[in-house]
Amino acid sequence: MRRPERLIRLTKRLVEQPNQAFSLSDIAAECQAAKSSLSEDVALVRSVVAAEGAGDVETIAGAGGGVRYRAGMKPSARAAFTARLIDILSDPSRILPGGFLYMLDVLGDPEVLDGAGRIFASAFYAAGVNAVVTVETKGIPLAVATARYLHAPVVIVRREHRVTDGPALSLHYVSGSERRIQTMSVSTRAMPPKARVLIVDDFMRAGATVRAVRHLLAEFHAEVAGTAVFMATREPVQKLVDDVFALFVVERLEEGRPVVITAAMPWEGG
Amino acid sequence: MRRPERLIRLTKRLVEQPNQAFSLSDIAAECQAAKSSLSEDVALVRSVVAAEGAGDVETIAGAGGGVRYRAGMKPSARAAFTARLIDILSDPSRILPGGFLYMLDVLGDPEVLDGAGRIFASAFYAAGVNAVVTVETKGIPLAVATARYLHAPVVIVRREHRVTDGPALSLHYVSGSERRIQTMSVSTRAMPPKARVLIVDDFMRAGATVRAVRHLLAEFHAEVAGTAVFMATREPVQKLVDDVFALFVVERLEEGRPVVITAAMPWEGG
Repeated sequence: MRRPERLIRLTKRLVEQPNQAFSLSDIAAECQAAKSSLSEDVALVRSVVAAEGAGDVETIAGAGGGVRYRAGMKPSARAAFTARLIDILSDPSRILPGGFLYMLDVLGDPEVLDGAGRIFASAFYAAGVNAVVTVETKGIPLAVATARYLHAPVVIVRREHRVTDGPALSLHYVSGSERRIQTMSVSTRAMPPKARVLIVDDFMRAGATVRAVRHLLAEFHAEVAGTAVFMATREPVQKLVDDVFALFVVERLEEGRPVVITAAMPWEGG
Repeated sequence: MRRPERLIRLTKRLVEQPNQAFSLSDIAAECQAAKSSLSEDVALVRSVVAAEGAGDVETIAGAGGGVRYRAGMKPSARAAFTARLIDILSDPSRILPGGFLYMLDVLGDPEVLDGAGRIFASAFYAAGVNAVVTVETKGIPLAVATARYLHAPVVIVRREHRVTDGPALSLHYVSGSERRIQTMSVSTRAMPPKARVLIVDDFMRAGATVRAVRHLLAEFHAEVAGTAVFMATREPVQKLVDDVFALFVVERLEEGRPVVITAAMPWEGG
């Protein structure tokens, strides 16, 4: 296989499976190329990806030697992404009765999911995440998009324990906004052993749900590597959890007044 | 930009955003290359992708001229994928009380999601899908993975109408297995206008849920372009819906007896 073909194949392989390590020897054998030629190819892919500012191609030392792609987003693309979303989400027709923000359409949009997943994953690659945990329902697409970039399984915490979950671990907690006792439950077989978890959710007010997920994970002896939410509210300023990475902060959300949303990363309140 | 760099950048762009059309002129300008050189690059990427049997690079005729990548899976990879999953899913410890099959871990696995999403999308590219609809909760990751390859939004049908959904369209239906009246509801603002929908779900027995989703979509004047399920049961042989693309069929599912799963695509029963 000639060099141009090798470069296409190598780029496709790496980019289609982010954060997955491939053996250089295997790829070299597939392409019927010397390992030294392939190393030069990897160096070129790395330099193009780095020049784009859209991720890294990392070489992993060790026996066989491996290579993996980790996604990123260049600052200008990230600024455009957040500005476009702030514009969309600030539309006053999004305020629902009771002071909720309508975000369902945005949370299902393929470009929003890809962008947010990319930002979340690139912020937590270094943390060695091996599972992404979310609470049903609205945050699931976001968790799936993030887990794809991390090459990690998604584990869904449910509101109710269903027969198809098999044995489950449950706990009760007091929701922040409604001050009522709620349940959450997760299938014991769905949680990987020695999990290092990134918690992903769509919306955080006081953080009662995130805190409950952390308690649930402690029951599994899982470590929390981080928490990433799409949108946090400014109020209450005093959150029940710290170390939350929020993409956006909604400063004000009242019927009849303009919505004010700002980009905030990482979350500096709490 | 030299040719090797252009090929890497072009491949990355196409593969990272499946089913999204890019203007050749824009990419040529970005790479400071002649459009004719870029056309040759596209032809080479197309030939490598075709030789791998893992998708297509399509050129779209018209004013600016465009190019897009559509994912696929070569027959040998697909055979290996289904064989591996049949092996995993046939484990008798997966049978839950009541004759249910435990699949939650599999439905959150990044490689399973990528593989199933790729197979579903490639089966429905030609149908011109512009929305993927699923019913909460277990099928959502599958729907998100499929929607990524189709570059379409995900719309989640819920069991209950929540305040954060905004106005919603609801209907009642009789569930096939439990013979009881259930509700489903979808946010009116989440459904794109003139939707051509691929319905995605994790499990189908008689098809009562899929039939109800089709009725719900009819209320939106949405067209159903197809239905794709991860697993269907052989019984009842007479389904309530036809034209269902099932990846797997579970032939037998009884406590104390081996699970029998076969690959079945498209669904030939019903």
